[in-house]
Order: sequence, then structure tokens, then C-alpha cells
Amino acid sequence: MMQEDAFAMVTQSHESRLTISPAHIAALRGMLGPKGFSDDAQRIAAKCQDWRGRYQGHTGLLALPGDVEGVSRLVAYCASHQIAILPQGGNTGLVGGSTPQGEVLVSLERMNRVRGIDPLNATLSVDAGVILQTVQETAAAADALFPLSLGSQGSATIGGLISTNAGGVAVLRYGMMRDLVLGLEVVLPDGRVLNTMRGLRKDNTGLDLKQLFIGAEGTLGVITGAVLKLFPRPGAISTAFLALDRIADAPALLRLCQHRSGGSVTAFEIMPHRGLELVLQHIPQSRAPLETASPWYVLVEISTLNEELADTLLAAMLESAFENGLIRDGVVAHNQQQSAALWGLRENLPEAERAYGKAVKHDVSVPISSVADFIRQADQIVREHFSEAEIIAFGHVGDGNIHYNVSAAPDQQTVLWQRAEAITESVYDCALALGGSISAEHGIGILKKDDLANRYPLEAEMMGIIRRALDPGRIMNPRMMVD
Amino acid sequence: MMQEDAFAMVTQSHESRLTISPAHIAALRGMLGPKGFSDDAQRIAAKCQDWRGRYQGHTGLLALPGDVEGVSRLVAYCASHQIAILPQGGNTGLVGGSTPQGEVLVSLERMNRVRGIDPLNATLSVDAGVILQTVQETAAAADALFPLSLGSQGSATIGGLISTNAGGVAVLRYGMMRDLVLGLEVVLPDGRVLNTMRGLRKDNTGLDLKQLFIGAEGTLGVITGAVLKLFPRPGAISTAFLALDRIADAPALLRLCQHRSGGSVTAFEIMPHRGLELVLQHIPQSRAPLETASPWYVLVEISTLNEELADTLLAAMLESAFENGLIRDGVVAHNQQQSAALWGLRENLPEAERAYGKAVKHDVSVPISSVADFIRQADQIVREHFSEAEIIAFGHVGDGNIHYNVSAAPDQQTVLWQRAEAITESVYDCALALGGSISAEHGIGILKKDDLANRYPLEAEMMGIIRRALDPGRIMNPRMMVD
Repeated sequence: MMQEDAFAMVTQSHESRLTISPAHIAALRGMLGPKGFSDDAQRIAAKCQDWRGRYQGHTGLLALPGDVEGVSRLVAYCASHQIAILPQGGNTGLVGGSTPQGEVLVSLERMNRVRGIDPLNATLSVDAGVILQTVQETAAAADALFPLSLGSQGSATIGGLISTNAGGVAVLRYGMMRDLVLGLEVVLPDGRVLNTMRGLRKDNTGLDLKQLFIGAEGTLGVITGAVLKLFPRPGAISTAFLALDRIADAPALLRLCQHRSGGSVTAFEIMPHRGLELVLQHIPQSRAPLETASPWYVLVEISTLNEELADTLLAAMLESAFENGLIRDGVVAHNQQQSAALWGLRENLPEAERAYGKAVKHDVSVPISSVADFIRQADQIVREHFSEAEIIAFGHVGDGNIHYNVSAAPDQQTVLWQRAEAITESVYDCALALGGSISAEHGIGILKKDDLANRYPLEAEMMGIIRRALDPGRIMNPRMMVD
Repeated sequence: MMQEDAFAMVTQSHESRLTISPAHIAALRGMLGPKGFSDDAQRIAAKCQDWRGRYQGHTGLLALPGDVEGVSRLVAYCASHQIAILPQGGNTGLVGGSTPQGEVLVSLERMNRVRGIDPLNATLSVDAGVILQTVQETAAAADALFPLSLGSQGSATIGGLISTNAGGVAVLRYGMMRDLVLGLEVVLPDGRVLNTMRGLRKDNTGLDLKQLFIGAEGTLGVITGAVLKLFPRPGAISTAFLALDRIADAPALLRLCQHRSGGSVTAFEIMPHRGLELVLQHIPQSRAPLETASPWYVLVEISTLNEELADTLLAAMLESAFENGLIRDGVVAHNQQQSAALWGLRENLPEAERAYGKAVKHDVSVPISSVADFIRQADQIVREHFSEAEIIAFGHVGDGNIHYNVSAAPDQQTVLWQRAEAITESVYDCALALGGSISAEHGIGILKKDDLANRYPLEAEMMGIIRRALDPGRIMNPRMMVD
């Protein structure tokens, strides 16, 4: 299946395409027009560093095209002159996928227009530079729901969220970003525009090409527009905070909640007691929701027709969970403020963790039924590497997605980081042995590129084949994901 | 992007790969073993004709591999000897995609094992030869729901349903087959096995390769296994049959039903009065559910926690729909028998239509908000072509999917079929002008191959590029979908 020789040639010339000549910069500036690029050093610097501060880069040109035609001309020029491009959204990624090392940096921040809403089709059509929060608000103003929800929603753009197939807290009910996209407008690696902005629920006209670009991290084209799926806005969203003796009970608890609520569960998040402790310690105004400590907590959210139904369902769920010995304690939020307080405990956990100390982080997933096995096995092997490890495993357990973070007290940080690589390899071993994934929602970027190549060799080979077929000049985000 | 010369060469040698020599047949038989192929003329004949009787074919060998290793060996042999393969599921497709013209016909009917069910992960793992009904029953036995539902569920196989991205009546709530697949086992065109049978809700390890094979109609590999998503089984499924003055009211009615039921609508089907007439005339034991005739009817189904809630929600929906002038009459099923009778009116429509006369059929979709415009515009232009046309537009209007069928009285059939091509082109023009699709759920196969090439040229070019990249020898179902 491979054309090794042709590929070797491409790889060898890889670096050269990262350096753009002054003549090309001048030509592109002329083509883009005065608003179509920026020389502002501060603005460029902000886009050349990832928000966690792990990656530092540089670019020869920050392009700010204002419409799809502008993107098309830019890409066509780069294609014919073998100039590498890196499309960047809100720059909120976690795997270094949007930090340039010489590529022309293409930001769609000027393409931030809501193109239209069709309430009867339950769709929203937007430029790719629109921010998630704007999409949520536009949907809400039309009495509809756009369900994707994650920490960076104030800066993450739709184009970036699609390119990374973003997840978040509502995947359990509404799916990943992939499941929320009905159509795309994409500038292909030769500058042509693929337009599938059709807003159709059913369309079996051959291969579903848009699937290729979702999660491709900008390696196959520049997404410039999208048609998004909207949902009926639930009449009531209710939250409970439950205490568990054993993480092994979480999958059965989820199943019980789904059955008792007719499939109304929209979020199901876990956190360990150590996580709660860190939040109470480091986040002002946070309060323990239960009187006694338990090893694990679950935040469960259900979305229903109205408050009355929500109360009935939550009461029935809790009663049954107590009876079945799945929970030892629990509290239900009776208003939005209480609900926000419970969610705050979960959402502030990453910040509390950072306040405590740097952690070796892993974004893994396993089948929901294997979550407890994974945590037990991973804990054991991590402690074999480093007995002082403080493990905070939390996250979207309703999707089998665990943010498995290994931290340590300040005086143990040096040792922790000496053993970080071995710890990570072991955590990945555990996840894969249980049929899991080493990147549940964060993607590959540059951070996990070697892991993808080493741990998924056939998949990586096929991704490379597709990439070379669609971008034979390898100008689209060339350093990322696969060779 | 294209490599025209290489491709022209492949196309020219196209026909030669359809003829398999006696020596290759003998070698493959030896490799497959006595159970691994069949010489039964009747059995072969049944698989060489599509069920509507539109396509008649032949094969040099009916292969019946018993496991993935057998499929792998078979494909590897065919790849190294340039022999074309056609994978066939239940042979229930509507576009000629599974009728061989000399290809080795690969049936997975011996691979019909449920590999395992994981209730806590809400997943079911199966061989691709398992029949849809078996999957539905296996899920139900574990108190779970596999929601895909369509007319041919007693013979359609999971492999075929995935390869054609099947739709059906529950797409509105649960999505297409694509949305129900978590993992695949695929024998690639070189015989290697891609295994993504991981049962994960979240897995962002690069491109989501399984998406390529879903809806690829066997052109990129042979699907041999799948992990399917299960859902909580609704406590109650309730049905109402509603009468509308105007099809233009259907989208607003759907929106109202969704809002009043908290998004509990699982089916929303339309049929015109002429369709009901045909059913009452041709289907024994069918009864008119309402006293007076209306131009259009909607069958709406909601899935909820329990009967009590269902009754409350349906009553509220109907009351509000009356008040808003969206319906003129309606009846609610009060038990399973009544519900089955209402569904029978919709499900027997295709059979009633056949009893009346052959129809020029179209499986189109448009945005839900454009359904009325589409029907009005298409009706007008079809009648310009043929004033005696009897148009039956019915189907999954909740997804914007209309089975737009043009029939005629027996004495007008000759004229109808003389004008069939012009009618079809006009219907497709109307759908595309409204941002629609010319194949909502039936796929491309051989029937719509030219339409795909002519009406979606860039898409077809890209599909060809991907196909040549993954199957450079073009052995997988070579005549189908795209050149």
C-alpha cells in the first residue's frame, strides 16, 4: 500500500518548506491586503505559544484572511510554492498542534460571522472563526441547544473544535464534535473549496468526506465554515453530587441512572477525594457538599422536560442507588446556584491541581466497564515507578474518559519528572491492554505523534497514505500527527 | 491532486479483473476449504440478483469464509493476482451495489456470531454477517436498545448496513448506522486486518479511520466485525397519527412535538392521502384511522420513561398542535396493537404502491425546513413532464428524507417510463437547488454512479483519490460508486 520512495523524498524536503522567503512574504501580504495579515509582535507572540506554555514557536507570516476566497487564494499560492501552512483556531489545544515552527500561521479570527440559523431544520451555519460560546448563545437565543461544552469555550473556535474533534462534558448524551457537524466548507491543500454545507441529517452520496477533516488537526485542509446540529433545549437541567465507596460501582450507577431517568443523563463525572481536597484548599468560596469524606464522588446531571419531572427522576435514582448499595451519600442541587457550586467542584479541579504542583497528565479512555480495572492497574504500576505519586484520576467516566494525572508534593517534583516518561508509558500500556485509547479527546498534535506511530502502526500508516493522497506537497500542518 | 495516467491504466484493465481463471478458482477453493465456498446453483443465483429484480449478475466463485483469517487470506490472494471481489451482506440494497458481474462474491453468512455484549459499556460486539434482527433481539434480552430499524431487518446484515450507512425510521433520535458504530474490524484491500474493535465513546488517536469504511459500499475493504452502541430501552413507546392540511406545517409540528416532549420524538413520518388510499386498497386488514380524509398525515412516535409520562406528553403535544392550527385531526394509539396498526399504514405503503404499479423512485433529502418547498417545486416540474403522474411523497420527514415516488395508472405506465429519466433529473435538480441530496439513505452503488460523478464532481474526484490510495489494485467492488 505504501509508496516508500516518494514519501522519503517528501520527508527529506520537510524542513525547507518551513522557511518562507521575504519575496513570498511580500507577495502573500499583497494578496491578503492590509487587513489580511498582522505585524503586531505581541499578537504574533501570543499565537506562537500554547496556553500551557509547553511549546514556543515562530512564524514568518501571520495571515488573517477575511473570507473563504482569501483562504483559497492563500492556500493555492502556498501550494504552488511549497510553503507550509498551520491553521490555528483559539489556540487552546493541549498537544502542541497549533504552535508554528516557521509555517505561515493562518488565523480565521476575522471570519467570525454567524452565517444563519434555521430553527425548523435545527441547524446553525457559521464561519469557522466563531467562538464556541457565541454558538451556544446564538442557539439559546433561538430557544435551542448547542450542547458542546468545555472549559475553553470562551476562546475555542468552531474550526479548531472540529479539527480536534473536541469532547467535553456532554458527550455522553450528545456526542463529540464529530456528531454535531452536518456540513463543512474546507479549503483543500490545492486551494480548491469543498463545500458540503448542506445541513442534511441523511446524505449517502458516497464517502462522507467531511469525516476526514473532523479530527484531522489541520493536516488535510483549512476548515472555513460549518453547519452545526441544534437540539431541543431541555426544560430543566438538574445536578446531584454522589459519594461512592468504590470506583467499581460507577458503571453500574451510570446504568441505573440511565434506566431510572429514561436515558436523560447528560453528564456523569468522577473525582477522587484527593481531588475534592485540592479544590477546597485552593479554590476560594468552595465548600464540601457532603458531611463525610468518601473515596470517590460522582457528579451526575440529567436534562428533562421540566423541574417537576427532574425532581421525581433524581429522587427515584438516588433511592434506588442507595437501596442497591451503589452510593453511601448524596446531595441534589435545588436551584441553579447550588448546581453551579457542585459543578464548580469538578470544573475547578484542573486549576486546583495546578496550584498544588505540576502533574504528569494523561487523557485516556477505556470501555466504561473497565474504568475501575484501569485505575487499579494503573495506580499499582505508577506506584511501582514512584511510591510518592499522588494520583488524581477524574473526568468524563460516563464516556470512559479519564484524565489520569500523576502529581507529587513540591519536594518530590524533581523525582516525579525524572520518572515521567516511564510513568506515561505504563499508563498507556494499561489503557491499551484494556482496549482503551491513549488520547481520548485531546488529539495527537506533536505531543503524541511518536506514540501514535509506535502504538498504532497500521493506523498511522493508513493515515499517512490518506494524507499523501490528499496533500501530496505536504503543506498542511506538515509536522503534526503522522509522517 | 490527481494522477490521471496511473488511473487511466487502472480503468482500462478494469474488465480483465472481473474474469477469474479456473486455476485461480481451484486455488481459492483449496484455500477456503469445503465449507468455505458453494457450488449450489440456486444459492448462487439468489445472490446474483437484487431483490427488486433490477440487476442480474454472475460470479465465478461464491466464497463463504468462516472467520476473519479466512477473509484475510482470500483478499490477500485476490490482491496478489488482481482478482476483483464483491462483498455482499443480506443483498437487500436498492442501488445494485451487491450484484456481481464476475467478481468473486464474498458472503459472510457463516460469520454470524454475536461475539459479546457488555451491558455496563452499553456495547455489542458482532461478526459482520449477523442479521439486524438478531442484534435488536440480543440487545433487548439484555434490557437495552439497538435502535436501527428498517423494513429489511430480517435479512440485512450488520456488515451491509455499515457499508451502506443504513438509515430507517429512528434516525431522528439515534442517528444513522454511522452514529451507532464504535469500532470495526476490516480486511483491507491487501489482506491485512485493521482492528478498531475498541468500544470507546472517545478516541482521538488521529484520523477516525472507521469512518472511511462506513458507507464505502465495500470499495475500501471487507468489514468483518463491529462494535455497536446500545441505548437505554425506553419504558414506553407511543404513537399518534395526525392529519395535516398543509405539508408546510410539518416542520413546525415536529419542532412543537420536540419541545413539548423534551426531545422524546423517535420517529416522524409523513404520507399523503393518496398513499393511505393505496394501503387501504391493497393491504388486507388495514383500516382508516381517522374519519375524514386530509391531504397529509404524520405518524409521530415518542419514546419515554413510562406509559403515564407518554400519555401526558402526547396529550399536551396534540392539544398544542390543535391550538396552533398545525393539525386538523389526530388519533393516539392506546396499546401495542393499535400502535402496530398505525405503523402498518406507513410500513405497508411501499408494498401497496408496488401492487398499484411500478414507480420511478427517488430517495432524496433536503433541510427539514425546505420539505414543503421541495414537494411543491418537484410536483410542478414532474407534472410538466407528465401531467398524468401520480406522486407519492412519503417517508422520514423528521430527517428531511423523502421517498419521492412517481407512479401512474396501468394504462399510463408506458408513457411514465419513457419520461422517467427526465423526471428523475428534474427531481434531483429540485433537491440540489434546495441544498439537498440525491441519495439520502440508499447510497450510490451502480444505479447512481453517473449522478455522483456529474453532480458532485469535486467530491467524486476526492473519493477516487482516496480509493486509489487505499486500493491501488482496485480489487474491492471495482465497478461501484466512483471511477
